[in-house]
Amino acid sequence: MKKRSTNYKIIEHLTTTFSSRVKFNEADPLGIVWHGNYIAYFEEGREAFGRTHGLSYLDIYKNNFTTPIVNVVCDYKFPLKYGDIYTIKTAILNNPTAKIIHKYEIFNQEEVLVCEGETTQAFVDLNGE
Amino acid sequence: MKKRSTNYKIIEHLTTTFSSRVKFNEADPLGIVWHGNYIAYFEEGREAFGRTHGLSYLDIYKNNFTTPIVNVVCDYKFPLKYGDIYTIKTAILNNPTAKIIHKYEIFNQEEVLVCEGETTQAFVDLNGE
Amino acid sequence: MKKRSTNYKIIEHLTTTFSSRVKFNEADPLGIVWHGNYIAYFEEGREAFGRTHGLSYLDIYKNNFTTPIVNVVCDYKFPLKYGDIYTIKTAILNNPTAKIIHKYEIFNQEEVLVCEGETTQAFVDLNGE
Amino acid sequence: MKKRSTNYKIIEHLTTTFSSRVKFNEADPLGIVWHGNYIAYFEEGREAFGRTHGLSYLDIYKNNFTTPIVNVVCDYKFPLKYGDIYTIKTAILNNPTAKIIHKYEIFNQEEVLVCEGETTQAFVDLNGE
Repeated sequence: MKKRSTNYKIIEHLTTTFSSRVKFNEADPLGIVWHGNYIAYFEEGREAFGRTHGLSYLDIYKNNFTTPIVNVVCDYKFPLKYGDIYTIKTAILNNPTAKIIHKYEIFNQEEVLVCEGETTQAFVDLNGE
Repeated sequence: MKKRSTNYKIIEHLTTTFSSRVKFNEADPLGIVWHGNYIAYFEEGREAFGRTHGLSYLDIYKNNFTTPIVNVVCDYKFPLKYGDIYTIKTAILNNPTAKIIHKYEIFNQEEVLVCEGETTQAFVDLNGE
Repeated sequence: MKKRSTNYKIIEHLTTTFSSRVKFNEADPLGIVWHGNYIAYFEEGREAFGRTHGLSYLDIYKNNFTTPIVNVVCDYKFPLKYGDIYTIKTAILNNPTAKIIHKYEIFNQEEVLVCEGETTQAFVDLNGE
Repeated sequence: MKKRSTNYKIIEHLTTTFSSRVKFNEADPLGIVWHGNYIAYFEEGREAFGRTHGLSYLDIYKNNFTTPIVNVVCDYKFPLKYGDIYTIKTAILNNPTAKIIHKYEIFNQEEVLVCEGETTQAFVDLNGE
């Protein structure tokens, strides 16, 4: 399995934070957020990022490109529990390829890092495939 | 973000396949399986693996250990659509650490590889934490 | 809130059963299937019904109609737990309106009735809205 | 299937509103919120209600009772789409039985009623079952 390089630097002035509350149905029988739900949290962070900095996204779509997720990585550090307030800090990596790489850090209400992750999106031309 | 080594070899005789059908509510507005849902497919594969080869898991729990997911990686190759039949091939990596590393390949009904991924589980002592 | 009549009779020879296993991430912190997930189980039942008896559905779409859900009712009787095998028995109600009414009963592996429910779908003309 | 009476009156001064944004993965291949996700929205509304008015809930748990959902009803009026902002208005019905009955109305950002529903919770004694 291909692993992506992470030597790229974060573009420092382009970060967004988004906070929400863990829902009952996001927690599993162990009483903690089921690990797959963090992928949805990353998406919340990415969309908040897009709303804040996202003019280029609009341009992407206007120019007939779509940007599917081609890779997700998540490292779990500490469990979130039902009722916790989590904050997602989303950044974008400066990289020379035709890809969008986001980096995420999620913190609980006590500012403990609960997980960090990364998503990579490719550009796909809607005309020529 | 720490990336795991994948130099470890698959234990060849320990693989399991599990097949199911993509549900309507697993597909997103693009008509394809939402990328986060593959993490649940990995879990289906891992649990099928556990049912087939899983005697050691029972021993783990009897000895007061739990095995939380500490890392997930997923590479997306080709979209699954609503109604597709997918097959998850789950293997386990031989590794010298106190970790359980599973490897997954998901295929559609035409035997196209749609994604591959990996999960790492740590052993956590329920007594001494 | 409008309640639907349920005086309509089941069309006896049109029933389908579908079985599956409760997934880990469908159970909540109480260790039982989160109540909202039964709506997805109804959909599994309805789709199995459609695959078995569903020629008319194809005709519906060919004639430019869609059939959105306009009402769901679910009565919970007994909890399903992680790892249980559930069986959904799906039937259709004979009714004089332009609606599709399905009735569901879900049983666990010990044939205990865990819930029963109903969905109503309306016909919507894709041309004239 | 038993239908509940809804002759009970809303306790007018006990209502709570909660707003959030439709997530990408809550929308289905038709581009609208999958009907089962409204059950999670009801739970968001109920929990916001509990945080505002919920002292009695704490008392319930302290006195060794739990309150499982025994019935859900949802009437769908108008679709929510990805990106819509929805507002859930949650109320409680005054009723003489040992049940908690909540009533929900969900509106989109243009104040169109998109659905209304009801949940019933029973009291279950944790000691005597």
